[in-house]
Amino acid sequence: MFQNFDAPSRAEPISGRLVALRARLADAGLTGFLVPHADEYQGEYIPASAERLAWLTGFTGSAGAAVVLANEAAVFVDGRYTLQARNQMDSADFSPESLIDNPPHAWLKGRLKKGDRLGYDPRLLTLAETRRFESACAAAGAAFVALDENPIDAIWADRPAPPLAQVSIQPDELAGETASAKIERLRTILAEKDVAAAIIAQSDSIAWTFNIRGADVPHNPVALSYALLRREGPPTLYMDGRKLSNAVRDALAGLADIKEERALLGDLAALGREGARVLADPQSTPAILAQALTEANGTIVEGSDPAVLPKARKNAIELDGSRRAHRRDGVAVTRFLAWFNQNAGRTPLTEIAVARKLEAFRAETGAEDGMPLLDLSFDTIAGTGPDGAIVHYRVNEATDRALENDTLFLIDSGAQFRDGTTDITRTIAIGTPTDEMRQRFTLVLKGHIALATARFPKGTTGAQLDTLARHALWQAGLDFDHGTGHGVGVFLSVHEGPARISKSGTVPLEPGMILSNEPGYYKTDSFGIRIENLIVVTPPAPIEGGEREMLGFETITLAPIDRRLVDTTLLSRAEIAWFDAYHARVREALAPSLSGEALDFLVASTQPLAAVT
Amino acid sequence: MFQNFDAPSRAEPISGRLVALRARLADAGLTGFLVPHADEYQGEYIPASAERLAWLTGFTGSAGAAVVLANEAAVFVDGRYTLQARNQMDSADFSPESLIDNPPHAWLKGRLKKGDRLGYDPRLLTLAETRRFESACAAAGAAFVALDENPIDAIWADRPAPPLAQVSIQPDELAGETASAKIERLRTILAEKDVAAAIIAQSDSIAWTFNIRGADVPHNPVALSYALLRREGPPTLYMDGRKLSNAVRDALAGLADIKEERALLGDLAALGREGARVLADPQSTPAILAQALTEANGTIVEGSDPAVLPKARKNAIELDGSRRAHRRDGVAVTRFLAWFNQNAGRTPLTEIAVARKLEAFRAETGAEDGMPLLDLSFDTIAGTGPDGAIVHYRVNEATDRALENDTLFLIDSGAQFRDGTTDITRTIAIGTPTDEMRQRFTLVLKGHIALATARFPKGTTGAQLDTLARHALWQAGLDFDHGTGHGVGVFLSVHEGPARISKSGTVPLEPGMILSNEPGYYKTDSFGIRIENLIVVTPPAPIEGGEREMLGFETITLAPIDRRLVDTTLLSRAEIAWFDAYHARVREALAPSLSGEALDFLVASTQPLAAVT
Repeated sequence: MFQNFDAPSRAEPISGRLVALRARLADAGLTGFLVPHADEYQGEYIPASAERLAWLTGFTGSAGAAVVLANEAAVFVDGRYTLQARNQMDSADFSPESLIDNPPHAWLKGRLKKGDRLGYDPRLLTLAETRRFESACAAAGAAFVALDENPIDAIWADRPAPPLAQVSIQPDELAGETASAKIERLRTILAEKDVAAAIIAQSDSIAWTFNIRGADVPHNPVALSYALLRREGPPTLYMDGRKLSNAVRDALAGLADIKEERALLGDLAALGREGARVLADPQSTPAILAQALTEANGTIVEGSDPAVLPKARKNAIELDGSRRAHRRDGVAVTRFLAWFNQNAGRTPLTEIAVARKLEAFRAETGAEDGMPLLDLSFDTIAGTGPDGAIVHYRVNEATDRALENDTLFLIDSGAQFRDGTTDITRTIAIGTPTDEMRQRFTLVLKGHIALATARFPKGTTGAQLDTLARHALWQAGLDFDHGTGHGVGVFLSVHEGPARISKSGTVPLEPGMILSNEPGYYKTDSFGIRIENLIVVTPPAPIEGGEREMLGFETITLAPIDRRLVDTTLLSRAEIAWFDAYHARVREALAPSLSGEALDFLVASTQPLAAVT
Repeated sequence: MFQNFDAPSRAEPISGRLVALRARLADAGLTGFLVPHADEYQGEYIPASAERLAWLTGFTGSAGAAVVLANEAAVFVDGRYTLQARNQMDSADFSPESLIDNPPHAWLKGRLKKGDRLGYDPRLLTLAETRRFESACAAAGAAFVALDENPIDAIWADRPAPPLAQVSIQPDELAGETASAKIERLRTILAEKDVAAAIIAQSDSIAWTFNIRGADVPHNPVALSYALLRREGPPTLYMDGRKLSNAVRDALAGLADIKEERALLGDLAALGREGARVLADPQSTPAILAQALTEANGTIVEGSDPAVLPKARKNAIELDGSRRAHRRDGVAVTRFLAWFNQNAGRTPLTEIAVARKLEAFRAETGAEDGMPLLDLSFDTIAGTGPDGAIVHYRVNEATDRALENDTLFLIDSGAQFRDGTTDITRTIAIGTPTDEMRQRFTLVLKGHIALATARFPKGTTGAQLDTLARHALWQAGLDFDHGTGHGVGVFLSVHEGPARISKSGTVPLEPGMILSNEPGYYKTDSFGIRIENLIVVTPPAPIEGGEREMLGFETITLAPIDRRLVDTTLLSRAEIAWFDAYHARVREALAPSLSGEALDFLVASTQPLAAVT
C-alpha cells in the first residue's frame, strides 16, 4: 500500500529535545531559532530525514513551522491542523498559533528586541521567505542569522539518512522531447534574460529537464537534487551519486556533469567571482545558494524557474501518455465504483477500507495493462457524510468512519503511472440522496460543465475562468472555499505551477497545460460534494461564424459521474447534452477493458440522463 | 449645445512655434522638452489654456504627447487618432508615433545620450510618470530636468486664460453627507496611515469632499483646484478666489481655509521642514508637489487618494438622486427613440442631426422636470453602419454619415443633472436587421443579462465578473476589445475609479458603487453593437436556501432595448424573464411622463418578447 493510515500519535515526551536545542542556541549566542516544515528542495513532500519540526515538537502535519526562543516556543499550523497540533504537542513546551492569522514573522514582532539574534538554516528557507524574516528582524533591531549547521541535526541522534531512491530515465517515447533539446530551449531563456546561468532548485523542474524520475519522497516521483544550467557548456546536476545506476549514469553522461550537492556552493562562488549574473526563482531557491553567489560578488537575477512554463505546456507525446494513463485509471475507478455500488450500504465498510480497495483496483488494473501503479499521486481523501465536508480530510485510524446509508461519499484520489499522473474526485450517493443533496450536486455539476465547455481567447487567465465554475452556485447564494483547478504534471507533481484556475490565477492558460476542474460544495457536519476531472487546454473545434482564435478544454478523466445525484430540471439542454456525451465517451473508452459486473455497472451508469428522469 | 461637432482642422502653419520653442530650449541648455496632453489636475478633460500640445503640433485629440529634440520631434497618439494626427500635423515638423507600441520613454531610448538634459514641466506630470522618464533618462546617462516655467507658455502669445467657472455648492439633500462629516472620515484614513496630511489632487475628489461643483472643463462638473487635508486643523482648498461667489465662500468658510493655488508649494515646504509624512497618490499627484515636500525634507507616503473609495461607495441619498436622474434621462431617451423610430430610414438624417436631437430631448425633459440638463456627461458617440464598429467614434462634420436603411445605429450618450450622471448605449435597427445582426445582438444581450443578474460573494473583483459578460460571445468565437464596465459618479465624472469590470479590475466591488454594464460586438466596416445600462452594487433579495452573504446589481438605467434585434431562440427562459421584467419596469417608471407618440412607442417597445416571436 502506498498510503499510511496510522493515526497521528502522541510522541514520546520531547521536552528533553527542546532543552538540548536551547542549550545549543545559548552556546551559539542565539536568541532563538526558526524551524520550518521544509527540506532543502521546497517540494510539497519532504523525506523523513527532514522532519525536524515533527522530531522537535511532536506535530506531524504536512505544513507548519516553529519558533524557539529562550523562554517561549510556538508552533504555527493552519486550520486543518489546529486540533491535531493540540493533541500532538505538550502545551507547556509549545504554544499553538495560527499560521495564517499570526504567522511567525508577525508573532516575532514585540518578542524580538534590539540586539537579538534569530538563527535559521539557510538551506531550508527560500530567498523570498528569508527576506520576510529579515525585515521582521530589522524592524526590531534584531539580526536574522544564517547558521552553517542546523543545530537540530547535531542533537537528533537517530535522524534517518536522506533518501537514496534509484533514479530512472523517463524514456523519450514518453517524454516526447530529448533532455538535450529541452536544455537547448532553456538556454534561449538564459540568453533572453542575459544571465550566465540559472539555478534550478525545484526537483520536478530537474526531473522534467533531464528526463529523469526518482522516488525520494511520497507521491511525487522526483529525485531530490539541484541543477545549474549554464548558457555556455553543459549543465551540472548536483545529486548523491548513489542514486545513479551505471545505466542511468551512462544515459546522463553526455548531457550533464554530475557532482555531489555540496559542490554547488563552490560552483556558485566561482561564478560570483567572475561577476556572473545568475537567474534564480526567489520562491524556490534556498537562501544559501543566493548567498553563496552574492557573497562572491555575483548578481542574482530574480525570475521564474525557466523550466516551469515549458514543463507546464505538455507536448503531444506527453498528452497521449496522459490520456492512456487516464483511460487506465478510469478502468480502475469504474471497477471501484461498481464494487462500491454493490457493497456500500450493504456490507459494513469504513473510509479506510474503501480507500484501500480503490488502491487495490488501481494496482490490479496497472498490472494487467503492463503499466504498474508506481504510487498514488497524493493521499486519498475518502470522506463519508460529515467527513466529506472537510475539504482537506485525510482519513486515519483514529477518524475512520463507517459508511452509512442515505448520505454522500466523497473520494478524491489519483495515481502515478509511468505515462501519466491522474487526479479524480467522485461523489457517490449511498442509498437515497435528499433533494438538497441533488440540488447542490447539480449546481456543482453546472459549474464543472461551464468550465469544461468554456471557450476563451488567448491570454485568458485562470482567475477569469474561475468565475464560470462558481456562477451557478453564486446565483443560489452558495460558494466553495478552495480554488477550482491546479496544474498537473505528467508522471510528476499532481500540483504543478504556474497556471491555476482560482481567484489568484494570474497566468494565461496555454495549449497543452493540464489542469483540474474541481468545483465543490460543502455543508459542514453534513456532506461534501466535489466533481473533479482533469482537462487539457486545447484549441476547440472550429466554431461556425467564429471570428477569434479561441482556446478550450479537452476532458481527459474518464469515469461515470453519479447520475442519481443529478436533478435534470436544473440543467439546460446543452448541459444535459454535455453530460450524456461525456458518459458515452466514458462507456466507449472503458467498455473494452471491463467485463461482468463492472461492465454492467458501466453501461447502466452511463445511460443518457433522459432515461432516468 | 454642449457638444461641438467641428471637424478637426488643419491648423495654420505652426513651424514658427517649433522654431521658437527650440530657440528657448537651446538658451536654457536643454536637449529637448516633453509636452504631455495634460493640465495640472490630470483629469480626463483639460481647459483650452492647457492645450499646449494642440498649440504646438496642431493635433487636437484628447490623448497624446510630444517630444521635441533639437533636430527631431515626434507626436505620440493611440490607434483612435492615427489618421487624425497625420492629417493635422506637418510631418516635416513632427513624426507620428504610436503611444502604445513606442511611447515617449521608449522612443527616447537610443536618442538620448550621456549628458543630455530633457526638460519637463513638473506641474503636468504625475509622480508615477516622472519616475518612468527619470529611469529612461538615467539609463542613457541623461537628466530629466524639472523646469520652473513652461517654455511654451512664454511663447504662446494668445494663450487663453485659465477657466474661472463659478463654483456651486452641492446641497446636503443631494450629497447625503455634509462636507465636514466627509472630512472627518478622511481624517481617520490619515490617522490609519500615520500621515500629517494628504494631498488631494484629483478635482473630482475635491468636489466630493467639499460638496462643491464647478464647470472649468467640459462634461466633468469640477472646479480645478488642489486640497491639502490635515490630520489636525482645517483642510486648505487652493483655488482661484474669483471662482467663488460670496455665498459659496461663506458656505465654505467654516470648512476649509481658502488660498491661491501658488500657496500650496509653500505650505508643502513648511510641512517638509517639520519632517512631516504626507500621503500622495502617485497616479494623480503632480511631481512638483511631491518635490516641494521632499526638497524640504518631508516624506511622501504613496497611496491611493483617500477620497477615491469613499466617493465610489455612494450613500442612499446619492443613489436616490441618481435613480431620479436616470428616470428623467430615460424619459428623454425614450422620446428620442420614439422620434428615431418615426424618422430614421424615412427622413434624410445624419449622425450629427441625431446626436443633436437627443441632446435637445434631454434639455427639454430636464427643463420640464425642474432639473435642467447641465452638460452632457461626454461627447455623444453616434455611429451608423460601419461607424458603429469604431469603438471610440466621435462624429464630426467631416465624418458625418447619413443614416441608411437595413443597418444598425449605435448611440452612446449621457447627461449631467444636478442629482446624477447618466451613461446609456442603445443599438437600434433601421429597417430590417440581418440574421447575423440579431444573433450578435442577442449574444451581447446574454452577456449584459448575465452581469445584471449576477450574484457574487463580497470581495469579488470586476475582473472576475467581466467573464460573465463575455461568456456567450466566447462560446461563439467572438469577443469585444474594451472593458465591460467603468465606475460612474453622481453629478461627477462619468469615468470614475477605483472599481471597474474588466480584465484589469482588481478592486473588490462594494455596495453603493455605480458601474456601467456595456458589453458589445463590432464587425469592422459593417456594424457595431453595444448595450449599456448603469448598475448599482447592492445586496440581492434573499435567496431561498442561500448560505453566503452575497452582492448583486440593481439596474438603474431605464429605456427600451430594441426587441426587434432579439433572437429569442437563443435566450433561456430566465433571460427572457429578465428582459420582459426590465421592460415592464421601464414602462411603469416612464409612462407617467410620456404622452402621444412617445407613450405609444414606449408601450409597443416594452411588450413581452413572447408577443413578437
